[in-house]
Amino acid sequence: MLDQEFERIGRRLRGEGLVGGSFGNMSVRDGNAMQITQTGCYLDEPGSPVRLPLIGQAPSNASSEYRVHRAVYLESPHRAIVHAHPVHAVAASLLYDEIEPLDSEGQMLCPRIPVVEGMPGSPELARAVADALRLRSLVLVRGHGTFAGGANLDEACLYTSLAEHACRVLLLVEAHRRR
Amino acid sequence: MLDQEFERIGRRLRGEGLVGGSFGNMSVRDGNAMQITQTGCYLDEPGSPVRLPLIGQAPSNASSEYRVHRAVYLESPHRAIVHAHPVHAVAASLLYDEIEPLDSEGQMLCPRIPVVEGMPGSPELARAVADALRLRSLVLVRGHGTFAGGANLDEACLYTSLAEHACRVLLLVEAHRRR
Amino acid sequence: MLDQEFERIGRRLRGEGLVGGSFGNMSVRDGNAMQITQTGCYLDEPGSPVRLPLIGQAPSNASSEYRVHRAVYLESPHRAIVHAHPVHAVAASLLYDEIEPLDSEGQMLCPRIPVVEGMPGSPELARAVADALRLRSLVLVRGHGTFAGGANLDEACLYTSLAEHACRVLLLVEAHRRR
Amino acid sequence: MLDQEFERIGRRLRGEGLVGGSFGNMSVRDGNAMQITQTGCYLDEPGSPVRLPLIGQAPSNASSEYRVHRAVYLESPHRAIVHAHPVHAVAASLLYDEIEPLDSEGQMLCPRIPVVEGMPGSPELARAVADALRLRSLVLVRGHGTFAGGANLDEACLYTSLAEHACRVLLLVEAHRRR
Repeated sequence: MLDQEFERIGRRLRGEGLVGGSFGNMSVRDGNAMQITQTGCYLDEPGSPVRLPLIGQAPSNASSEYRVHRAVYLESPHRAIVHAHPVHAVAASLLYDEIEPLDSEGQMLCPRIPVVEGMPGSPELARAVADALRLRSLVLVRGHGTFAGGANLDEACLYTSLAEHACRVLLLVEAHRRR
Repeated sequence: MLDQEFERIGRRLRGEGLVGGSFGNMSVRDGNAMQITQTGCYLDEPGSPVRLPLIGQAPSNASSEYRVHRAVYLESPHRAIVHAHPVHAVAASLLYDEIEPLDSEGQMLCPRIPVVEGMPGSPELARAVADALRLRSLVLVRGHGTFAGGANLDEACLYTSLAEHACRVLLLVEAHRRR
Repeated sequence: MLDQEFERIGRRLRGEGLVGGSFGNMSVRDGNAMQITQTGCYLDEPGSPVRLPLIGQAPSNASSEYRVHRAVYLESPHRAIVHAHPVHAVAASLLYDEIEPLDSEGQMLCPRIPVVEGMPGSPELARAVADALRLRSLVLVRGHGTFAGGANLDEACLYTSLAEHACRVLLLVEAHRRR
Repeated sequence: MLDQEFERIGRRLRGEGLVGGSFGNMSVRDGNAMQITQTGCYLDEPGSPVRLPLIGQAPSNASSEYRVHRAVYLESPHRAIVHAHPVHAVAASLLYDEIEPLDSEGQMLCPRIPVVEGMPGSPELARAVADALRLRSLVLVRGHGTFAGGANLDEACLYTSLAEHACRVLLLVEAHRRR
C-alpha cells in the first residue's frame, strides 16, 4: 500500500521533471519512526521503503539523507517529506539567499523561501533544514535542491512543484528585467 | 463520460507541461449550470467534476476559481474553460501588459493577448477575465497563468497550448534581440 | 497499418515536445497521391489519414497544409513529410535567415538550414518549401516551424528532432557568447 | 533479458530528454566482446543489441560509435557505456574546455568534467574519450554530447543525467551572474 503511494508520488515528481536519475528521496512519518526510500532507488520505481526509528541506528539501505528527514520530524508537525533536485530551484539557490516568488501561487503559499547551506547528508544540513521547516513547508538547500514538508506526500510534492515553478518564473523575469 | 473527457484533456495539459502539481482547473457549461473540476485535484486524474449553478451557492468542493468560470459563462458564448499556469505565460504576464505573438499560429489565432489583474478566486478577477473573454478566446492573468475559452475542452486546451508556445517564442526572441 | 504508423511517429513528436495541441501534420507519398493527417487532429492520436491526389481537388478534412506537402512531392524524391512547430526552431527562424548548426549532428546532416517565408497553407509557402526541400531534408518557415522530408516518416521525424536540437544549442551558445 | 535491460535504460534516457530521435547509443561489456545498440535504433525501443569483439571486424549494424565504446573497454574497468546528446551538455561543451559543476551532486560525483574533441565515430575521438574515461566516469565531446561509463547501465545513465543537470544549472547561473 505504502509502496504504491511512494511510487505514485515518485511518478509525479519524475513526470514534472523535478527529479532525475536516482536522485531525490521521500519519507512519511510512522509514529516514532519513518518510512523512507532506499538509497540509490529511482523515485518512480522506488520499491519498498525502509523503516527507520527517529532516534538510533539507521539501516544501511536507507536514503543517505535520512538525517535531514529525521530532524524535520523531530522538530515539526510534518507527516511527509520530499527532497528533489529541480534544476531552476538549484540554480536560484546559487543566486539568491532567499527566494521571493513573483507568481501568485508562490506568493500565496510560500512568499519567502529561505536558502540554507550544508553538505548533503550531514548533521549540519539536517539542523538547518529542520530549523527552516519548523514553521514552513519549503526550503532550498544551496546547490542541492528542495526539501518540502506536508501533511502527506501529495502536499510535500505540491510544494516541490511550486518551488520549481516559482524559481523558473523568477529566473525568466529577472533575466528580462535586467537587460 | 464527462469524467473521461476531463481526464483526457487533463492528461494533455500535463503532458505538455501546462499544469503542475494540483494547480489549474477546467469546466464545461451545462445549461444554466457548469461542471467544474474539484478543488485540489490533479487535472490528469481529476475524478468526477462538481455541478454548480451559474447563479447561487457553490459546493465547497468546487475549484476555488469557480467565480471566474461562472462570470465567463454568464457573459460569453464559451462552452468550456481551461485555466492553467504555464511557466512562460506566467513570466510574460509579469513583463508585458499585452502579448503580441511573433509565431504564426499566435498571430493568426490570437494576435493580441491581454493581461489582466486580480487576486486568484476573487470577484475582481472574475470580472476582468469575463470582460476579456467576451470577444476573445484567451487572456493572461498577471502572475497567475491563462484562462482560455472555447466551444469545447479541446478548443480551450488548444488556446492554452498556443499561449504558452507564443510566450515562450516571444521570450526567446526578445532575449536575443535586446542583447 | 498506416494509421498505426502515423500514430507511432506522432507519439514520438509529442514525446519530444516537437508538437503541441493539435498543431503539426504529416504525410506519406502513395503513388500519384498522398496520405495526410486530418485537419485539427492530435498527431499522437491522428485517426485515419486522408488520401489526396497530388493534383486536383482536396477533401475538406485534409490538413490545411496539404498544398505544401503536395508541392514537395511533386518536386522532390521525398516519400514522407513532417511539419512541426518546435519552439526553439520557431524562435531561431525569427532571428536568423539561415541556421548553421553548432552541434556535430546538425553539422553532419544539415550544415545549413534555410529559413523561408509565407503564410501558413498558402501557395507561396508551398513553392518556397518545395524549392528548399528539392535537394535538402529540412527547412524552417519563419515563425511557423519545420518542414522535414525523408525516405519515410522515421527519417522526416529524425530531421525534425535534429532541427530543434540544433536551434536550441545555437540559441543557448549565442546567448552566452554575446554576453 | 539484455534486450529488456537496454530498453529499460533507453526509456529512462528518453524520459529525461537526454536523447532525441534515434541519436545516442549504449553498450555493456561481455568478456572480450561487447553488446552495443544497433545503428539508427531508437534507444527506448532498441531491439536486440549487436555482439562485437573488442578487437577485430565489427558487424555493419553496430552503432557507428562502436570504436569509442571499444577503446573505453580496452583501457578502463568500465562495464557499461552510455552516449547521449543532452542539449545543455552539448551547449556547455561549445562554451567551456572543462566543466566545473556548481550543483552539489556534480561537485561530489564529477567535480571536473573534461571536454574532448574529435569527429563522431573516428579513431581520434575513440582515443580521446578512452583517455578521459580511464580514471573518470564522465566526459563531454565538443558539440556532440556525453560519454559516461560505469559498473552497469544504471550507473552510466546516472552520470549522463548528472552531466545534463550540472550543465543546465551552470548555464542558468552563469547567464544571471554575468548580467
